[in-house]
Amino acid sequence: MPVVRVSFFAGRSPEKKRQIAEAITSALVDIGGSKRDAVNVIFDNFAKEDWVIGGAPEFQKKAPE
Amino acid sequence: MPVVRVSFFAGRSPEKKRQIAEAITSALVDIGGSKRDAVNVIFDNFAKEDWVIGGAPEFQKKAPE
Amino acid sequence: MPVVRVSFFAGRSPEKKRQIAEAITSALVDIGGSKRDAVNVIFDNFAKEDWVIGGAPEFQKKAPE
Amino acid sequence: MPVVRVSFFAGRSPEKKRQIAEAITSALVDIGGSKRDAVNVIFDNFAKEDWVIGGAPEFQKKAPE
Amino acid sequence: MPVVRVSFFAGRSPEKKRQIAEAITSALVDIGGSKRDAVNVIFDNFAKEDWVIGGAPEFQKKAPE
Amino acid sequence: MPVVRVSFFAGRSPEKKRQIAEAITSALVDIGGSKRDAVNVIFDNFAKEDWVIGGAPEFQKKAPE
Repeated sequence: MPVVRVSFFAGRSPEKKRQIAEAITSALVDIGGSKRDAVNVIFDNFAKEDWVIGGAPEFQKKAPE
Repeated sequence: MPVVRVSFFAGRSPEKKRQIAEAITSALVDIGGSKRDAVNVIFDNFAKEDWVIGGAPEFQKKAPE
Repeated sequence: MPVVRVSFFAGRSPEKKRQIAEAITSALVDIGGSKRDAVNVIFDNFAKEDWVIGGAPEFQKKAPE
Repeated sequence: MPVVRVSFFAGRSPEKKRQIAEAITSALVDIGGSKRDAVNVIFDNFAKEDWVIGGAPEFQKKAPE
Repeated sequence: MPVVRVSFFAGRSPEKKRQIAEAITSALVDIGGSKRDAVNVIFDNFAKEDWVIGGAPEFQKKAPE
Repeated sequence: MPVVRVSFFAGRSPEKKRQIAEAITSALVDIGGSKRDAVNVIFDNFAKEDWVIGGAPEFQKKAPE
């Protein structure tokens, strides 16, 4: 602990993820006072079809006229 | 934000998911007053072996007699 | 299951939340084919200070010149 | 409900997961007073590259001298 | 890691929660092969109004006739 | 999106949280290529009694002799 869960679209390289994890870890250590070895950063990678922003208006239910 | 995370068994088609996302988005906009473009619906699809309901009684530990 | 977790700012009334829960539940039953009694909708209500969108640029670290 | 989400590295067999699910379920029933059929245990299996503990110091940003 | 998140209704005593945490931890150590000191069990306690099972049919939208 | 959920013990000031959110946001923008306005950082603050690390061995079940 702390546990930081990063949810985003799949596609970042392992190296990018490690860089991001390092920046998050440093922030929690330097600003938040956490112990470095206790910081867990978890990446949750989603396919495009599994993350919908703003809905899918083509399926919007018609109001009864 | 809001962020809505839907966890269920894998297997719904992308179209079904978009329809579900639209219904959830509409509810948050119409009832909850959220801005449509701010609603994120995320689908987290699980394999059957990764979701256990009611435990697995065949592994129940015997009480010492 | 399914489990739907709705994260947003605190402040909706219990009645609004029930209406939203009903809309989500209906969508999962009618479109997703879930059994009504199996649908769990969980509301996770956040204080404004606990949800930061777009960062807090006033704290942006200066690059070394 | 309750919903128990177990996040760890991928690699446990389905049988191990069922045994773990049973132990968790029994604890929630025997100690927590939950109804057995209502306990959901969900396993979220991560690849090594998606879980970083203690940061990645090789990417640590140099402080300006 | 592992991280186990237990979501249920508020109301269990700290002692009950510690007992449940111990049972979950032991299961992950004995069956899953995790290191005891690495197991994090987190309790997420919900008010009744924030967890809706089976929807709220009194708000069900009438289909247009 | 991305959505970053930071779970830790309660107690950080709103200002500290904003600083941490900024560092995380910058990392996702600069390294991950995300759009700044799309980054959501959510803080989930836990009481000590709700986060158990390493179990609670005082409740360990005795093996039958």
